[in-house]
Amino acid sequence: MPADEFDVIRSLFAPLATHASARGLLDDVAVLEARGALVVTTDAIVEGVHFLTEDPIDAIAKKALRVNLSDLAAKGARPTGALLTLIWPDARPAAEIAEFARGLGEDLRRYDVALLGGDTTSTPGPLTVSVTAFGKPLGERVPSRADAKPGEDIWVTGTIGDAWLGYQALHGDWPEGEIMHHAAAIARYRLPAPRVELAQTVARCAGAAMDISDGLAGDAAKLAAASGVALFIEAEAVPLSNAAHAWRSAASSYGRLFHWGDDYEILLTAGRERRAEIEAGGAAAGVQVTRVGVVEAGAGVRLVAGDGSLAVVGDPIGHAHKLGR
Amino acid sequence: MPADEFDVIRSLFAPLATHASARGLLDDVAVLEARGALVVTTDAIVEGVHFLTEDPIDAIAKKALRVNLSDLAAKGARPTGALLTLIWPDARPAAEIAEFARGLGEDLRRYDVALLGGDTTSTPGPLTVSVTAFGKPLGERVPSRADAKPGEDIWVTGTIGDAWLGYQALHGDWPEGEIMHHAAAIARYRLPAPRVELAQTVARCAGAAMDISDGLAGDAAKLAAASGVALFIEAEAVPLSNAAHAWRSAASSYGRLFHWGDDYEILLTAGRERRAEIEAGGAAAGVQVTRVGVVEAGAGVRLVAGDGSLAVVGDPIGHAHKLGR
Repeated sequence: MPADEFDVIRSLFAPLATHASARGLLDDVAVLEARGALVVTTDAIVEGVHFLTEDPIDAIAKKALRVNLSDLAAKGARPTGALLTLIWPDARPAAEIAEFARGLGEDLRRYDVALLGGDTTSTPGPLTVSVTAFGKPLGERVPSRADAKPGEDIWVTGTIGDAWLGYQALHGDWPEGEIMHHAAAIARYRLPAPRVELAQTVARCAGAAMDISDGLAGDAAKLAAASGVALFIEAEAVPLSNAAHAWRSAASSYGRLFHWGDDYEILLTAGRERRAEIEAGGAAAGVQVTRVGVVEAGAGVRLVAGDGSLAVVGDPIGHAHKLGR
Repeated sequence: MPADEFDVIRSLFAPLATHASARGLLDDVAVLEARGALVVTTDAIVEGVHFLTEDPIDAIAKKALRVNLSDLAAKGARPTGALLTLIWPDARPAAEIAEFARGLGEDLRRYDVALLGGDTTSTPGPLTVSVTAFGKPLGERVPSRADAKPGEDIWVTGTIGDAWLGYQALHGDWPEGEIMHHAAAIARYRLPAPRVELAQTVARCAGAAMDISDGLAGDAAKLAAASGVALFIEAEAVPLSNAAHAWRSAASSYGRLFHWGDDYEILLTAGRERRAEIEAGGAAAGVQVTRVGVVEAGAGVRLVAGDGSLAVVGDPIGHAHKLGR
């Protein structure tokens, strides 16, 4: 894009950067005044890998922020600030950047996050948005993937598999006659709902915790490996939306509901004495929290169906499996 | 890339992430223990925009880190940690990632920077590397672009224009018979030398300061605009390498020496009473520091040749002008 576009861009994003640390986006750095622990995460989304070219540009902006807020929530942290690196394709109309900034601004306000700075450059390739987000831990410790202990319950927030369904729906792969949940599934794919309102409960109750961004089966396997434990999960206890139930009935299979990712729900473990507190936390936040299994001694993940057979084998599934790649 | 590549990648980068804050790259977040001000910057480099496809992969890794360290040095901050977002092309051999990690590791050790975390994903597009770097201010204040005052001197570190010459050299656009400086210029293009050893002097002496990454003329214009002042710079005082002198003689022009960018030198302003201290700081660091002009009341940049004519007009020149785009 021409050099004066960069001035245009700054004029679009500067009004979002009202925090003193951002220096009005006029400087090359942000200056944070930090006290105590600071949780930092960074996640990038790439056109054709994490979102589709034709996804609405304001939803792309929001997704880039939200996937990072999801990481913070799963660590029991409240988001405070973010850096945005916007890598804009030469071939995409620069006029869309205003709509990108508008969507981002909505979410910065919604989640009370300060835009602290960033970088803008052009690319001959796909739209790529990298966000670094900062958060303040709400508890004494920041639960890691490595903190699960045998005997703990396994919990999952929200419902699993809807983002995959949304992706299927966008590609016309949807059971005949089952149109009721079509739009809802697409919305879940395009716009995850990071569980920021559960961060306090995670901070108070979780042993291990992580967000589910690469599929329940794969992420559970990562947690099991990091903690040196086995996870036993009852497939039929895993919370499904009505859309996913309908899909499963029509397809007679879990498909990739547990394997695909982009759920941006929280997987956590907690001692049995925390059950009432976790349920109360979910109820207060208006978010479903479901006990799906138990941590055991051993290794690996068993996702077991009602008849005792393995529903899926829980080996790590990465981004590579997204979008059929 | 296949999912198991991600395990390979983690095994390559985890040995670089020895700081406790990094959680061994096994978690989704880093946890910093911050006290006082934290300077944060983020800069991405894109294949075909900021580096060439055929540049050595270890130099690309180092460049991605160094452009960020340059920002910190220009703010009088000592680098402490970094997050790496590696967006790897499907089409580039994954085997090169080991060499990328090796190069990055060398620079992390050289500059004593902790790898704190990051993200890895694939892309159908160009190699893209985004780094977020953290630094500790070495002075009471963190000089911004907006702090220049009339009457202050203008200083530049190192030499200007060599990265552009290197780019020219790589494209065969080089004066006939003038081959002595060819390799040195290419090295400057591929591998900037962030002026970290001058951060202490910047912290103590600078009014305004910024790194020169988009060309001396353009960055001076940004500093002038942010500070609400005019910058008067004597073109013939601007430090040139022997390569740039030779080019200028052969071409009878400054070409884009002052306009192209990628210098990663520091532009700063300082009161006249700081002259001895700045020169001593440069001498102690083994880095040339050169007084090139003076801050005046007014607006804009005048880069004036010996005969009083304008050498170049200092309007902002962005990344868009790089690589002829």
